[in-house]
Amino acid sequence: MAETGTGKYEQLLSRTAKMTPVVTAVVHPCEHSALAGAVEAAALKLITPIYVGPAARITELARKGGIDLGSAEIIDAEHSHAAASKSVALVREGRAELLMKGSLHTDELLGAVVARESGLRTGRRISHAFLMDVPTYHKVLVVTDAAISIAPTLEDKVDICQNAIELAHAFGLERPKVAILAAVETVNSKMPATIDAAALCKMAERGQIKGGLLDGPLAFDNAISKEAARTKGIDSEVAGDPDILLAPDLEAGNILAKILTFLARADAAGLVLGARVPIILTSRADSVRARIASCAAAVLAAHARRKSDVIAPKV
Amino acid sequence: MAETGTGKYEQLLSRTAKMTPVVTAVVHPCEHSALAGAVEAAALKLITPIYVGPAARITELARKGGIDLGSAEIIDAEHSHAAASKSVALVREGRAELLMKGSLHTDELLGAVVARESGLRTGRRISHAFLMDVPTYHKVLVVTDAAISIAPTLEDKVDICQNAIELAHAFGLERPKVAILAAVETVNSKMPATIDAAALCKMAERGQIKGGLLDGPLAFDNAISKEAARTKGIDSEVAGDPDILLAPDLEAGNILAKILTFLARADAAGLVLGARVPIILTSRADSVRARIASCAAAVLAAHARRKSDVIAPKV
Repeated sequence: MAETGTGKYEQLLSRTAKMTPVVTAVVHPCEHSALAGAVEAAALKLITPIYVGPAARITELARKGGIDLGSAEIIDAEHSHAAASKSVALVREGRAELLMKGSLHTDELLGAVVARESGLRTGRRISHAFLMDVPTYHKVLVVTDAAISIAPTLEDKVDICQNAIELAHAFGLERPKVAILAAVETVNSKMPATIDAAALCKMAERGQIKGGLLDGPLAFDNAISKEAARTKGIDSEVAGDPDILLAPDLEAGNILAKILTFLARADAAGLVLGARVPIILTSRADSVRARIASCAAAVLAAHARRKSDVIAPKV
Repeated sequence: MAETGTGKYEQLLSRTAKMTPVVTAVVHPCEHSALAGAVEAAALKLITPIYVGPAARITELARKGGIDLGSAEIIDAEHSHAAASKSVALVREGRAELLMKGSLHTDELLGAVVARESGLRTGRRISHAFLMDVPTYHKVLVVTDAAISIAPTLEDKVDICQNAIELAHAFGLERPKVAILAAVETVNSKMPATIDAAALCKMAERGQIKGGLLDGPLAFDNAISKEAARTKGIDSEVAGDPDILLAPDLEAGNILAKILTFLARADAAGLVLGARVPIILTSRADSVRARIASCAAAVLAAHARRKSDVIAPKV
């Protein structure tokens, strides 16, 4: 990964510098920012894009916007729906190891990803993770799930948590610390999120969730501040130092991510995890840094997957 | 406590030897074994009985059975119901520090104990504990709740657990080990007992349950055998060495206690905990050892209570 700064993202994702670019199906890049984002990532040698969408429209967009597509392959697809299924097919054939969302709706892309016969389902539930660079926090925070799972059950949370842990492993974190958020730090059967949190911790102890150090329930203050945790008598390795914040549900996760973005001026890089390949999910509002961070994180995850996955790339 | 053997009960309860007898309301002792049990315990200087029941009938029973009531006080009560409420009143007045069930029905006694105005309720739920001396296990096991709480909620289990922990403290165990039993050792939302177990462990970490070292869910084999736990990859200080077995519900607890009694030839000494004073709850089928163990355990609990409780005895 080229130097785009010396911030927390860049430190966390610096290992991409030694990696070869990953072939990425860029799905329906029919708006300037979507196409330009892929081209930037290609220039940084993070990805080798295959553009999948209406070929004439993509070429025209590049020409008008002064974007150099170089020798990148374009696979023609009539409309966004076709672009989504053709991109997914590229992954199934082993021709691409990453998906990058272009200017189609997220639901449309995910629909093709989770399609029962033709999709990219694994045994895992699909989940969303934000990589957040919060200026007032000392490292990158993974916030999950703030975008996909509305009201996750305990089993859903197991997958959401495991997806995030494996992402952190891909960054080189050996045993990422997971703070399981709730409204309070005590267990209370009237607040099911606190019970789920306790259950998740025990599941990690029993090896039902692997590779992370979990604690919860933690209220946001004791999750993020060791001081606040101590005040409450909580002696926790996770408190004050989490790598991952596991939200109790979508509302809480989404509000949390948005407050960090808008009030704490955090950058947020989006990813979809749990499918056969990671999906880069940036939005027009994202900063260049965040967009590059999404790509870099996905590249690391794709490389990690090569070691563990049966689906080796054919490229 | 006088020497009645050198077994596990006697070791655990040996501290009663240095204690003064505790004034005990013996409720409706109108059968030979009930009256004789109290007299035995008095002879061992564990208790100073006050017999509460039909005075003429009790005196006659003693005379016929060759039982020497000595100078013990008898408080006349027309029938078992009156005996129960008069006994409870003795405790409320501070004249007695223990209750001992005679030949009335358990429900009748507990009805008077939990009566909202006149009873002996505390903030805690009432629970039952068996002190079991299992020949094939290396120490006394407290099994709870095998007799009162039919389908305890998480909050009920907190009280059941805390009652048992405090009983173990009274025996001099500083941080008793609690194995929370379930059908499996993994957390599974289809088996609520496993979720409760995880929640209870976290509650102990958060100080919502105090003074014990908890682990669960544990299946019976990995609760009782460190070897079996290791085979399952469970690294637990509790596995193989619990002082307390917390049953998931009444059926499981009762079956567990009965199997230990009938197949593993265990002695089982019964106690009711969580009221203002401990209640000695023996049955006719109990061995003398078990009956004495119930009394000794209750005496230890009553002494421990003197240190913590506002209700000092007036005797």
